[in-house]
Amino acid sequence: MSAPARLIGVGVGPGDPELMTLKALRALREADVVAHFAKAGNPSKARAIAAGHLRPGVAEVPLLYPVTTEIPRHEPAYCSEIAAFYDAHLDARRSVAVICEGDPLFYGSYMHLHVRLAARYPTEVIAGVTGMSGCWSAVGAPIAQGDDVFTVLPGTLPEDELERRLRDADAAVIMKLGRNLPKVRRALARTGHLVRAMYVERGTMKDAVVMRLADKADDCAPYFAIVLVPGWEGRS
Amino acid sequence: MSAPARLIGVGVGPGDPELMTLKALRALREADVVAHFAKAGNPSKARAIAAGHLRPGVAEVPLLYPVTTEIPRHEPAYCSEIAAFYDAHLDARRSVAVICEGDPLFYGSYMHLHVRLAARYPTEVIAGVTGMSGCWSAVGAPIAQGDDVFTVLPGTLPEDELERRLRDADAAVIMKLGRNLPKVRRALARTGHLVRAMYVERGTMKDAVVMRLADKADDCAPYFAIVLVPGWEGRS
Repeated sequence: MSAPARLIGVGVGPGDPELMTLKALRALREADVVAHFAKAGNPSKARAIAAGHLRPGVAEVPLLYPVTTEIPRHEPAYCSEIAAFYDAHLDARRSVAVICEGDPLFYGSYMHLHVRLAARYPTEVIAGVTGMSGCWSAVGAPIAQGDDVFTVLPGTLPEDELERRLRDADAAVIMKLGRNLPKVRRALARTGHLVRAMYVERGTMKDAVVMRLADKADDCAPYFAIVLVPGWEGRS
Repeated sequence: MSAPARLIGVGVGPGDPELMTLKALRALREADVVAHFAKAGNPSKARAIAAGHLRPGVAEVPLLYPVTTEIPRHEPAYCSEIAAFYDAHLDARRSVAVICEGDPLFYGSYMHLHVRLAARYPTEVIAGVTGMSGCWSAVGAPIAQGDDVFTVLPGTLPEDELERRLRDADAAVIMKLGRNLPKVRRALARTGHLVRAMYVERGTMKDAVVMRLADKADDCAPYFAIVLVPGWEGRS
């Protein structure tokens, strides 16, 4: 291969393969190697989204999660895992497309690679439709407009902090629900936002679950479900 | 036309036509009518992005800004303008694709139409890459990760409120700069964020302007320029 080594973070969007961009498709077509993140033992969601657009026979490299998030970044074990990745491919002057759910630099695992390798190799990032955009579009919920302050909150925050920040937000998205849902629900109720909060699971997929959070009878939620608090409705 | 009337908000992304999604392309190909927002007398930016994908000869309807934002929503003048739009097309059982810069329901003019017409006609919203995603990707700035709280702030906020909210944010994007830039700069300096704030104009275009805000010698900024305050760097 004669092209220079290059690392490309490719956003493939929130789940519906049709929400991939033309630029992402081109990057997948042109890359020597396609890498993707996955939890050890699980299939990669990003790869499933992009599957229809991979070149037959393209070299694929799974990057297992412990490589990028569960080992502290200055650990020797971390460095040697990452080194194996770029030594094998970037140093061989290959272009490596790392496919990422949603947008690579918005709460994505890719940014760990990017920050470490950007000083040594040319890098490019291809923006993608975020998971949250996919969700509010599927619901048809105008999320923010005009002079709204819009805030993304992880459900992992302490309950009093969630409450304080929700009280201060015109529009919000709450991520990382899972077992945090009861706490999130209480914080929304106390701030008067529960009445307009929407619960969304797998927003852009055929098996999407969408309902008013107030109508959800149980507190079972996957970690990747999100709650939308549209700003528009709060003011109308 | 035999398909039922349908209103489709089509996100065409932040500016680079390659950041359009496959779904947006299909919607433009299938729609009977393509509508777009523009300031009276100015070309539509959304239309410029989508220009290469419009069917030759497709019916086009410009929606001038006063229609959707400068007339209060319950004014008779507003209602009659909007009525002219949907009477002519949706009532004639045409499918109307409204092309929108970025993502239709994220600070977009489309949501005005959507909220008014969703009860009367079938609607669909196609998520797009937001302007801010386009900017942080162009800059290669990991914007938020892990348990970061991410906040979008309009530069129009009072200076003390900007300062208070910046102090409370791990990661932030400040929009609507223009003549608000001196105020935004002071609020960033007082909260210790100026050192990592990036200034971006036309992020995904060939003539993009990208620099550290601290290095920007003047306070001239277009209204649509944005400032990025990446969360990642704040913690590393």
